[in-house]
Amino acid sequence: MTTDSYIIRPNPDDPRLTERVTGVDQTGAHIETAVTVERALTIFLNSQEIVTAMTINDYPEYLAIGYLLNQHMLLPDDEVTGVDYDEELAVVVVRTKRKTNYEKKLKKKVQTSGCAQGTVFGDLMEALEGVELPKATLRTSWLYKLTQEINTTPSLYLEAGAIHGCVLAQEDKPLVYMEDVGRHNAVDKIAGWMFKEKVAAGDKIFYTTGRLTSEMVIKTVRMGIPILISRSGFTAWGVELARKANLTLIGRARGKRFIALAGEDRIVFDQDLAYVEEESSKHRRKAAVDD
Amino acid sequence: MTTDSYIIRPNPDDPRLTERVTGVDQTGAHIETAVTVERALTIFLNSQEIVTAMTINDYPEYLAIGYLLNQHMLLPDDEVTGVDYDEELAVVVVRTKRKTNYEKKLKKKVQTSGCAQGTVFGDLMEALEGVELPKATLRTSWLYKLTQEINTTPSLYLEAGAIHGCVLAQEDKPLVYMEDVGRHNAVDKIAGWMFKEKVAAGDKIFYTTGRLTSEMVIKTVRMGIPILISRSGFTAWGVELARKANLTLIGRARGKRFIALAGEDRIVFDQDLAYVEEESSKHRRKAAVDD
Repeated sequence: MTTDSYIIRPNPDDPRLTERVTGVDQTGAHIETAVTVERALTIFLNSQEIVTAMTINDYPEYLAIGYLLNQHMLLPDDEVTGVDYDEELAVVVVRTKRKTNYEKKLKKKVQTSGCAQGTVFGDLMEALEGVELPKATLRTSWLYKLTQEINTTPSLYLEAGAIHGCVLAQEDKPLVYMEDVGRHNAVDKIAGWMFKEKVAAGDKIFYTTGRLTSEMVIKTVRMGIPILISRSGFTAWGVELARKANLTLIGRARGKRFIALAGEDRIVFDQDLAYVEEESSKHRRKAAVDD
Repeated sequence: MTTDSYIIRPNPDDPRLTERVTGVDQTGAHIETAVTVERALTIFLNSQEIVTAMTINDYPEYLAIGYLLNQHMLLPDDEVTGVDYDEELAVVVVRTKRKTNYEKKLKKKVQTSGCAQGTVFGDLMEALEGVELPKATLRTSWLYKLTQEINTTPSLYLEAGAIHGCVLAQEDKPLVYMEDVGRHNAVDKIAGWMFKEKVAAGDKIFYTTGRLTSEMVIKTVRMGIPILISRSGFTAWGVELARKANLTLIGRARGKRFIALAGEDRIVFDQDLAYVEEESSKHRRKAAVDD
């Protein structure tokens, strides 16, 4: 019923996203299991090659647009005149009305613990300047409904593991659930979808399976989303930047528990915890998943 | 007793590695918790700036050497004439007898789902050519003893979470246990330690909390270690490359369970599973940890 709120959800049955492989288990018995695929996708902005990402490649267009947005190479008011994806060449080209040239930017790369995409960290830091996140509310009743629904939504994670998930939500309704082998790919695919669909960010909630690192916080703020929730932990910079940007930062959200380390004032504690279930072991994310 | 086998182990009590922060929990009560720090460290090779990594920065010298090794910028037979670390500038300079220039390489960056450090993936692929991993044995009794000891070793993960761990082991003995906010930093610190201490790789076992992606497999093979174990899952390329390189690849190693998807012939099933404990919830890694 509530799952009707999904506009995009994982498709674990898509044969292109997992592979069946054989091996042995702890008893030495032969077994067959599903593993997640990763494919190289090279992103061009107009005539310039920007990056090659490793991705499950379910939404190359959204990934390309979102990556370029989060790298400040595509600007919110840019007019995208076309996105051409060539499956055979594993290339996606984003074309803009504005002439672009990021030769310099491509030289100065800073890798972050949020890792993934050689983000130009300095530029991302600047992006925090002057960003005003809107007033917003997070009811704890929404949080528990969201996390419970996300954990039980059929996904590549539940099918094959070794994958990250991000969800764009509104109140207690998940709207877009993206997964990818690279955590930041999942974020970027959602950013690309929001840009293409011209979706407002101020009333949204962002959920990630990944850690709340500086880069994750910066990307969420850049997207204009005031609330970031993770089942994983924090880094000190992530907390510091969230406080600076007045982002509501909630981590270690598992079962009944969560911790808010920034923007606590947006939280309304309306949920009677006596009625919140702990995670079932079936749906607990059982292992470290990176990215 | 067996913990005496550690040459390097995490130091969760090091005040430079965690920060105490205050927030609220699910009941709205004010709490204090520890979060992991991340610091920028810029790595130079001779006069050339190579990369800025986000790291907990406990072993800048090992990280710098290991990073350069794993990027093929430092060669196994290179003579390192000095490693200068300036804490104030957050810069570490690795000096070699050989003249180096990686201008071109620094331009052509490929990001991977193993993410982290903008690895030059093409070059890493080449590195698999002609690599011969030695004959070796993994007794399942060693595997269970190792994972049990690693999970119960005091660590930043158990203290603050949101961090990756890698362990270099021999038979059932963990030798070097490195943690970092960036998964590949932990790998690189071990590679740097092995290079500096001239440690043989052929009789070692590598354990990681992270996923078994193509990049993780390639780095392990590059290091010359024949056995890679993770509590996390696999990607299809990781499995494919491990088979190509004849690496023993074991994933989803938690409690009694594990799955081997490559190099199974090195495994000796000598452990009576009736005597293996499941992970205690205290030591289960509870959440997605990336990066």
